[in-house]
Amino acid sequence: MVPRYEIRLSGSGGQGLILAGLILAEAVALWGNRYVVQSQSYGPEARGTASRSDIIISDEEIDFPKALHLDVLLAMNQKALDINFLDLKEKGLLIIDADLVKDLPTTQAVSLPLTGLAQEVAQSPLSANMVALGALAVLTRQVSLPALQKTMAVHFKKEGLEKNSQALKAGARRARHWLSENSARSDGA
Amino acid sequence: MVPRYEIRLSGSGGQGLILAGLILAEAVALWGNRYVVQSQSYGPEARGTASRSDIIISDEEIDFPKALHLDVLLAMNQKALDINFLDLKEKGLLIIDADLVKDLPTTQAVSLPLTGLAQEVAQSPLSANMVALGALAVLTRQVSLPALQKTMAVHFKKEGLEKNSQALKAGARRARHWLSENSARSDGA
Repeated sequence: MVPRYEIRLSGSGGQGLILAGLILAEAVALWGNRYVVQSQSYGPEARGTASRSDIIISDEEIDFPKALHLDVLLAMNQKALDINFLDLKEKGLLIIDADLVKDLPTTQAVSLPLTGLAQEVAQSPLSANMVALGALAVLTRQVSLPALQKTMAVHFKKEGLEKNSQALKAGARRARHWLSENSARSDGA
Repeated sequence: MVPRYEIRLSGSGGQGLILAGLILAEAVALWGNRYVVQSQSYGPEARGTASRSDIIISDEEIDFPKALHLDVLLAMNQKALDINFLDLKEKGLLIIDADLVKDLPTTQAVSLPLTGLAQEVAQSPLSANMVALGALAVLTRQVSLPALQKTMAVHFKKEGLEKNSQALKAGARRARHWLSENSARSDGA
């Protein structure tokens, strides 16, 4: 049992992270039978392009719905990483878009070409959010791919659903590949 | 200055309250220069049809992002009202959809035909969420109609934007009408 698990999706305004956060939260709650709070914070500086979506998962009702010690940080660009990295726990999981983040503050990051994969399998960088969800499902084991797909079917219309399902699967495949390549290193660490 | 202002939009899953919450939060933050946290909570019971979206507005950064003492409760059906009414402050503002709520626990509610107006001006009950936002803007003065319209333009495509703008305006008109009819009563209270 994990009493509380905090995930932050961060990037820029056009990357669809709020939608990704909603889909992740619904999938965990509906198909995982857990409590979830999903939130967005906006400040007077919101006219800028920074975007973030927090998801808190718990086996119990969530009394304090603010993410302060992230178990997972997804950073879809350099600025998002720089702003949010200090909120990540020491042993937390950092997932970054290798296409858009160049300076890494740690050697422990999972660096995946999220935008490149979206372009490749869905012919659009806008599906990078679903590539990220697929990777996140494999790397965190907090939600299953079928649960995400069922929830996506509520949010996307037919054509978009097909493309974004391909994006989800591509992200999951690449994350599994990363795990297999890095398991030896992790085991020996 | 209002240090903290809490709004809850409640109803059923198909009524678009999460989208309404996102639009309201963005409009307040972007055009009102205030801090906003917008959140959804899901529990294992989420397979049911209850839906709610909380918006907390403050002039300062929001350290505790859970809505506990609502200044405003929008209830788009009877069940939502029954579940959430006790979270409304004693002098809080209750807005209900007169088409879908019949049993009122107070005589102080603002009862407006949200779904009926949506059907009338946008030819769809699905625009009742934007009718509600229009009414809420007039009744709470926490956000302007132009700010809501600018934010809607980000979320709706052309045809949907036109219909939903009509819905927003219809809600605002009806709320102004309600205020003019009830101001005498309020002044004498």
